Amino acid sequence: MMSSEISALHTDLYQLTMMQGYYATGHNPEAVFDLFFRQNPFGGGYSIFAGLHPALEIIENLRFSESDLVYLKSTGLFQDNFLAMLRDFRFRGDIYAFEEGSIIFPQEPVLRVHASILEAQLIETISLNMINHQSLIATKASRIFHAGRQKPLLEFGLRRAHGVDGALSATRAALIGGAESTSNVAAGKDYSVPVRGTMAHSWVMAFGNEAEAFEKYAELYPHNTILLVDTYNTLESGIPAAISVLRKLKEKGITKFGIRLDSGDMEYLTKEARRMLDDAGLVECKILVSNDLDEFIIQELESKNSPIDAYGVGTRLITGDGSASFGGVYKLAAIKEGGLFLPRLKVSNNMEKTTNPGIKNVYRLESGGSYLADLMAMEEESENIMEKFNRKEPVTFYHPASPYEKKIYAHYESATPMLRKRMEKGKRLQPAPGICDIRATALSNLEKVHPSVKRFLNPHVYKVSASENLSRLKFRLLENHPG
Amino acid sequence: MMSSEISALHTDLYQLTMMQGYYATGHNPEAVFDLFFRQNPFGGGYSIFAGLHPALEIIENLRFSESDLVYLKSTGLFQDNFLAMLRDFRFRGDIYAFEEGSIIFPQEPVLRVHASILEAQLIETISLNMINHQSLIATKASRIFHAGRQKPLLEFGLRRAHGVDGALSATRAALIGGAESTSNVAAGKDYSVPVRGTMAHSWVMAFGNEAEAFEKYAELYPHNTILLVDTYNTLESGIPAAISVLRKLKEKGITKFGIRLDSGDMEYLTKEARRMLDDAGLVECKILVSNDLDEFIIQELESKNSPIDAYGVGTRLITGDGSASFGGVYKLAAIKEGGLFLPRLKVSNNMEKTTNPGIKNVYRLESGGSYLADLMAMEEESENIMEKFNRKEPVTFYHPASPYEKKIYAHYESATPMLRKRMEKGKRLQPAPGICDIRATALSNLEKVHPSVKRFLNPHVYKVSASENLSRLKFRLLENHPG
Repeated sequence: MMSSEISALHTDLYQLTMMQGYYATGHNPEAVFDLFFRQNPFGGGYSIFAGLHPALEIIENLRFSESDLVYLKSTGLFQDNFLAMLRDFRFRGDIYAFEEGSIIFPQEPVLRVHASILEAQLIETISLNMINHQSLIATKASRIFHAGRQKPLLEFGLRRAHGVDGALSATRAALIGGAESTSNVAAGKDYSVPVRGTMAHSWVMAFGNEAEAFEKYAELYPHNTILLVDTYNTLESGIPAAISVLRKLKEKGITKFGIRLDSGDMEYLTKEARRMLDDAGLVECKILVSNDLDEFIIQELESKNSPIDAYGVGTRLITGDGSASFGGVYKLAAIKEGGLFLPRLKVSNNMEKTTNPGIKNVYRLESGGSYLADLMAMEEESENIMEKFNRKEPVTFYHPASPYEKKIYAHYESATPMLRKRMEKGKRLQPAPGICDIRATALSNLEKVHPSVKRFLNPHVYKVSASENLSRLKFRLLENHPG
Repeated sequence: MMSSEISALHTDLYQLTMMQGYYATGHNPEAVFDLFFRQNPFGGGYSIFAGLHPALEIIENLRFSESDLVYLKSTGLFQDNFLAMLRDFRFRGDIYAFEEGSIIFPQEPVLRVHASILEAQLIETISLNMINHQSLIATKASRIFHAGRQKPLLEFGLRRAHGVDGALSATRAALIGGAESTSNVAAGKDYSVPVRGTMAHSWVMAFGNEAEAFEKYAELYPHNTILLVDTYNTLESGIPAAISVLRKLKEKGITKFGIRLDSGDMEYLTKEARRMLDDAGLVECKILVSNDLDEFIIQELESKNSPIDAYGVGTRLITGDGSASFGGVYKLAAIKEGGLFLPRLKVSNNMEKTTNPGIKNVYRLESGGSYLADLMAMEEESENIMEKFNRKEPVTFYHPASPYEKKIYAHYESATPMLRKRMEKGKRLQPAPGICDIRATALSNLEKVHPSVKRFLNPHVYKVSASENLSRLKFRLLENHPG
């Protein structure tokens, strides 16, 4: 993956049939598409934007190979002149997007594509695939990491991930959201991120008893000894055997070691284990827990002050358990006719699902080091808006689904345009930052989100509003829409 | 993917540290591991076994490349002599497994690995990754396909899948479970399976009105016209516009066409659409529906006799919505000491989670064309057991978690050993069947599952039992287990 050419066949068939349609009819106008989502996953109040740079890399390198063209021909759906055009196909459009690692909220465009409609359609599926998947997992990781009061979170999910490459991209996203390391060795190599592991029950079962299994391991890995203590009976055999081995390590001057608990009542067992370890003089011994954890279980363990030093989370992190998908969509916002971009909107009986028309940017207001609210405004009014913001003038925010609900923001310290150009004429404008840098961005951004928005139960709804111009445009178009 | 060499780094770090442990201590006995799962996903009564052949292909081709070895060295965890051994590493063990496309049930081993413990550990993670993921999606597809009374199921999930390769393997599994086609063009090419698609809302929005958008499409694809009718107002503009275009096709003698509904109340809209189409003389027009469907929604639509001809399912199929994972595990069953395989079991406070020890096969009894029950028995008693079965003698089945619950099966027509050798000394014994063949296997197998087991709500629990010998062994080991 991620190297040189990527087959452009990683798309839905209808993108190709529609592309041929635009090509054959000669109706191939410049278009603007917005990528946005409608609801935070997991019932949460915020999301983490991830998957941007892998998406841009793929888009830059999309190609139809000769064998791709032979395959398309074999479907009987495509004409030779269209296939000849695909042979030289390159995506040559512009892409604007939030920074990867940004906090993002429902309804606002987080990525905007400017290209001929033919090109814009081709990249729809791959963009959604990358951003939906990685934003889902990054958001899950963020929730788990913060439930665990930012204690080290180890990603352990390879065996439950969606294929080996599904695991790689999920691991990337988990690290962006807050995981400090992964058990996935291929991810460690590819992404230059820390890899961690302990031992399996089979190691313990492969020896005569726990004491022997633990001793052998500590001899081999004196500086990386984390003993799995629950193979037989945690309190009666596992921890006593671990104590005896760890004491010997301590006598040698080593103080970096731990135990891992993978079953049973974690609050009870960690408290008993801590007491036994402390009584044995092993106050340095860390306690790592695993076993089908998620943000809710971890929050409960933390609320009871369970003496846990690190969390290993597999299944429910790597699969984004709790939400089937991130739900990002890609909708036509404007189309060029007679030299002018005309706004388009997709109507729905459900006002919340009616799209926001036209070419827009998003401005994020901050106050006292916290995000205050986001405003969607037309690109054509960006100078006016920024002038107002720079002068700290009051600005009226309109509810995007209701023309009569508005609110004036008069007190704010800064306003930042969030959509910036990331790709021009098909070429990326910046190199992709490293995963650890994106992770740092995400963590510092999250500090600016009010705790009430981060709450798991009934989180406060962060406001994403429309400018007066956008609101007027939307409701004018709605009055006149066909059908 | 799937080609030549696969990096052996697609594993958990602890597999490699344990491997070095077995290598360094010289304690590297032959071992037998069982891969099994504990609970059917989605609250269902059965599962579909998928992912076997991709797993075997990867295992046969696992290699540590030079750059993999350089990376491992850089972690500081590995010795040079161990890394030198990895340079020539090949998996040389034997693998027994159910046929891909089999119906599988909790507790029974569906795959069994015989290898040195060092080799067996390395392939644990990749085997679980492949089989967990694909069995989850194949099972979901099977449920959706049967809820829809085996009407054509189109897989539409690429944009919500876990990366591009996560999408490919999920699509493979969806086809095995029952999908007839996919929108994923790369999957169509790689797997030689049908690709299908309709049109997007953006196509309709790119033209002045629906009539124009539909006409252009029907001109281009007269033999593949499926018109998306819900962009503006389904009943007032979408269907009337479609009728006018489809009538012209029909006048030209074309009768293969359809409409697609992607929003709104599907029961109401499909019944109204059917009436309007029939009144217009378009009885041939098929109705395809999509929009966040799953087996429960489809079952409800079918129970109301909604006039639907095909289902397009994306998100909830491709992500296995409703269960975070398949939950397959890989546990040590036996280990060779002094020339003999000694059974091993992993004890749990929860009797249902205590593993079944020793080298086992699974025998499936059939009666009247239906699966009756499965029996786990020791390999060493296989001749005896098969003789009994062939003579149609009564056989006593023991509850695997309770020595006092037993049942005698006296009436059955056949008994089939389900675990068969698929790999010998690291080489596959059969070529992988095509996906359509595996799909046919799965569909015909499912006909043998009693409807009560296929029920969504409180399905009947299909019995997986232990032979008398296995039951005795298990409870004897439990009495004497350490801790």
